[in-house]
Parts: sequence; C-alpha cells; structure tokens
Amino acid sequence: MSAPHSRTLDRDTVLCVSLAARPSNIGTRFHNYLYNELGLNYVYKAFAPADIEAAVTGIRGLPIRGAAVSMPYKEAVIPLVDVVEKSAAAIDSVNTIVNDDGVLRAYNTDYQAVADLLAASSFDRSAPVAVAGSGGMAKAVVAALRDEGFTDVTVIARNVEAGGVLAAKYGFAHAAELGDARPTTLVNATPIGMAGGQAAEDLPFPQEAVDGAQAALDVVAMPPTTPLVRALRARGAEVISGDAVIAGQAAAQFALYTGITPTPEQVREASAYSRA
Amino acid sequence: MSAPHSRTLDRDTVLCVSLAARPSNIGTRFHNYLYNELGLNYVYKAFAPADIEAAVTGIRGLPIRGAAVSMPYKEAVIPLVDVVEKSAAAIDSVNTIVNDDGVLRAYNTDYQAVADLLAASSFDRSAPVAVAGSGGMAKAVVAALRDEGFTDVTVIARNVEAGGVLAAKYGFAHAAELGDARPTTLVNATPIGMAGGQAAEDLPFPQEAVDGAQAALDVVAMPPTTPLVRALRARGAEVISGDAVIAGQAAAQFALYTGITPTPEQVREASAYSRA
Repeated sequence: MSAPHSRTLDRDTVLCVSLAARPSNIGTRFHNYLYNELGLNYVYKAFAPADIEAAVTGIRGLPIRGAAVSMPYKEAVIPLVDVVEKSAAAIDSVNTIVNDDGVLRAYNTDYQAVADLLAASSFDRSAPVAVAGSGGMAKAVVAALRDEGFTDVTVIARNVEAGGVLAAKYGFAHAAELGDARPTTLVNATPIGMAGGQAAEDLPFPQEAVDGAQAALDVVAMPPTTPLVRALRARGAEVISGDAVIAGQAAAQFALYTGITPTPEQVREASAYSRA
Repeated sequence: MSAPHSRTLDRDTVLCVSLAARPSNIGTRFHNYLYNELGLNYVYKAFAPADIEAAVTGIRGLPIRGAAVSMPYKEAVIPLVDVVEKSAAAIDSVNTIVNDDGVLRAYNTDYQAVADLLAASSFDRSAPVAVAGSGGMAKAVVAALRDEGFTDVTVIARNVEAGGVLAAKYGFAHAAELGDARPTTLVNATPIGMAGGQAAEDLPFPQEAVDGAQAALDVVAMPPTTPLVRALRARGAEVISGDAVIAGQAAAQFALYTGITPTPEQVREASAYSRA
C-alpha cells in the first residue's frame, strides 16, 4: 500500500472537492487513492471556502462533479442545491453534492451508511436502544434507527434542548442521563473515545450499562477500537464500529461521484491509506 | 524530459485553472510540468465553463488561485474582476486572473510577452511596420508596438471594419492590402502558417515584401518555424517567433500564480513537454 501518485492531469480530468472550514487530509487521500487504484481520470482537492454560496455557484459554473460538505456548511448548502435527496432530507443535513449536468443533488451518506449498516445487522429492532449525543452524527443515527424500524429509542444528551428537539423530531424519548436504565443496544454519537480528545479513555455510558449491553454502534473512527467497542467485542457482542461508518459513507460518496462502487477490499485499503 | 506525475494532493494544494470553450491540453501540461519540476504544491486543471459568471464566482468562493482565460471569455470576464491591470486594460482583453486573498486581478500576459520581446529586440522603432490581422492577438501586438515606441505602423486586414477600429484605437493607419508597400518590419498576427490550417504553407504578406523585410514577429507557435519565419531567418534577419511569445506569456502567467519566475531553460522544457 504505497502512496499513490495521481496521474498527469489533462483537460478531461474530472474534479471533485470538499468544502469545510477546517479540511482534513482524509477525504483527499481516500478519493485520490481509489481514483488511482481504479484508473479513473478524476482528481480530488479539499477547499476551505472563502464564501460557501460562491463556492457552490462555482461547482455549477466550472463545473465540478461533486463536493463533500463538512462543518459548518451541512445545513447552509440546502437552499443552494436543486434537489434534496431522501438521505439528506431525512436529517436536514447535506454531506455530499453531486453535479449532474448542472443539476445539483444533495445527499447525506453518513445517514445512508448508518442505515445500511443497521439494515445488515442483527440488532434487535424492538429492544431498547440508547443514543448518546445530540449533534450532526446523532441526528443521522437517530433518523436511521427510526427508518430501519427501531421502535424503543432514547436520546441521552446533557444538552436538554438539542436532545429534546432531536428525540421529538423522530418520535423518540429523551433523557439527560441514562440513570438506571439498561438498554440492550448502546449507540455512541459523541466524540467520547476519540484519540486526542479529553475523553479518549472514557465510556459514553455508565460501566454497568456497558456490561449489560448486547450490541453497540460507535461512530468514532479514530481509533475504531474505542473503550466501548473493546468492551463489547471482548464479550462477543455484535458491534458496528466507526471505521465501518466512515468507510461506508466515503464509498457511497465515491459511487455517487463516479458511478463505480469500490469493493470492500478497495475501501479498506483506501481507508487505511487515508488515515496513515 | 519524461512525463511528470503530479504529487499526491493534500488539503494545502493550490488550484489554478483555465476557462475556455474548447480547452487544449497545452496549459495543463505546461503548468503541471513546472509545478512538478519546481516542487510546488500546486495543481492545474482545464475547464470548459457551464457559466462563465458562475465560474469566476467560484474562483473567488472556493478559492482558486488563478485562471487562464481563453476564447470566448477574454472580454466577458472584465466586469467580473476587481482590478483590471495595465496589461489587460491596454487591449480590453484578459487572459489571466489572479486571486489575491479574494481580490481578483486581471492581466493580459499575451500583451506583456509581446511588449517584453519587442523591448528586448533591436527592431527599428521609427521604421515602417506592417501588422497582418485584426483579432485578439493583433490587438495585443498593435498595443505593444505603440507602447514600445513604434511610430509608423499599418494594420493590414481584409476585415475593413475590425482593422480600421483597431488601427484607429492606437493611432495607426489601416489598409485592406499591403499593395506595393515594402515595410522594414513584418508582423503576422493571423493564423497563416499554422500547422493544420488551410494556409500552413502560405506567407501572410506578398513574397516581394517578405524578400525586402529586415525583421519579423510571428505569433504562430505551432509550428514556430512558419514560412515567414523561415524566409527571414534564412537571410539572417532578426525574428521573434511564436514559441517565444507563447512561452513568454505562459511564464508570465506562471510567475503571477506562484511568485516564482522559471528560468528560460525550464520554460523551454515545459513548452516542449506541453506541445509533445
């Protein structure tokens, strides 16, 4: 898995971009790796837009084939596109824009990836689920849980307003703390367990709840083996970890841009390269 | 001079583009070759804009560092930029936009390159000059002749309206045909002598005028040795050929984008690569 060098660009090279206040190198490396691997005449470049409205106008005008949209633009781009596809409409949040001959379509592949992973899982649809978090990823997870048929979901968020609004939007319960509840399935949609964060070694739920859970989904991808994931895997419980979410969303984005669905092996290689 | 492969892109890679109805690969190859040669974290990509106004908005909004502007957008972009620099103002035509932290500055490096080559030449400023042509390059050449102190210039153009307007704008004479005149210096600003054109083997002036001339400038770059250039060089006359013009304008563009002036040797290598 050596560093791939992009091909010599020519006039037919297709450009895809990302739009974020603070771009990382992950998307740039993931997409360019796969373009190279699959021999596609595409190139990917991250931007920190000077003006998000003007940047989206440029996607249409140049034209640029696709754009990954990150914080803080995921809602701001909604009025700038032509079509809000189901995945983005489900959570009023866009992470991908595709330019189809001048028609800008907005998607949310985070939502799509979580929904796909839940659909493929054996998680018990009628058992109690607790979701920690009330931010953008929590929204994607809660909407996906509802759409995949989960019925007994509680949003756990100290931010009572955000948590309450999120839970109410999807017809679920909200609590500031888990308390004595012992849900079957635990979902972490907070940064707890993320490397470099203040809570890298922490669990997003009380130890007793973790000990009693039978399944977990963790959106943290760096590292994919958070304390929560480690604890559940050690007992042989079914776990969806953050690397699967991030790889699934990136692969979905890649397929939207290129029309080509990379193999799981190619996605694994590109993901590993992107985080190296 | 092997094909250079661009470096792996990252979030800091600077993008420059070209905007043309029918992009060639020449600019893409020239600039990417030099970025690679000089180890600059830049990448260059040609666009055929869906909407020139939206494309320029995108240059500002993404942001993009620089844009080469070709037919048919050289005048259309003037109201879209913030500052029209002297080189573009001299001929009301833009071939380069530079984005300085959100301020779009417009230049014309064709004009600049011709003016620089004339300034460095031994061409007689007071001797009669005939310029064949009335298009965009003729405008650049006529303005450069005036600004470099040439006083006795006649624009030769069958298109009486365009030729007359051009000559009048810069205070020179106009004629539909050269007739019996025997100017000291001949300037070709038409496609005559261009490979693949209908007049690849033709001279832009009557044979007798070519035989009597002491200097020539030819803007045709493909090939740089047109029949006019060959005839003058065979007699040891001073000649500025089209490859010098195109290399000069591209090098000026490169310097505007990057702040780095490539050496003449690097420009020669990049030019040769760009046309290979």
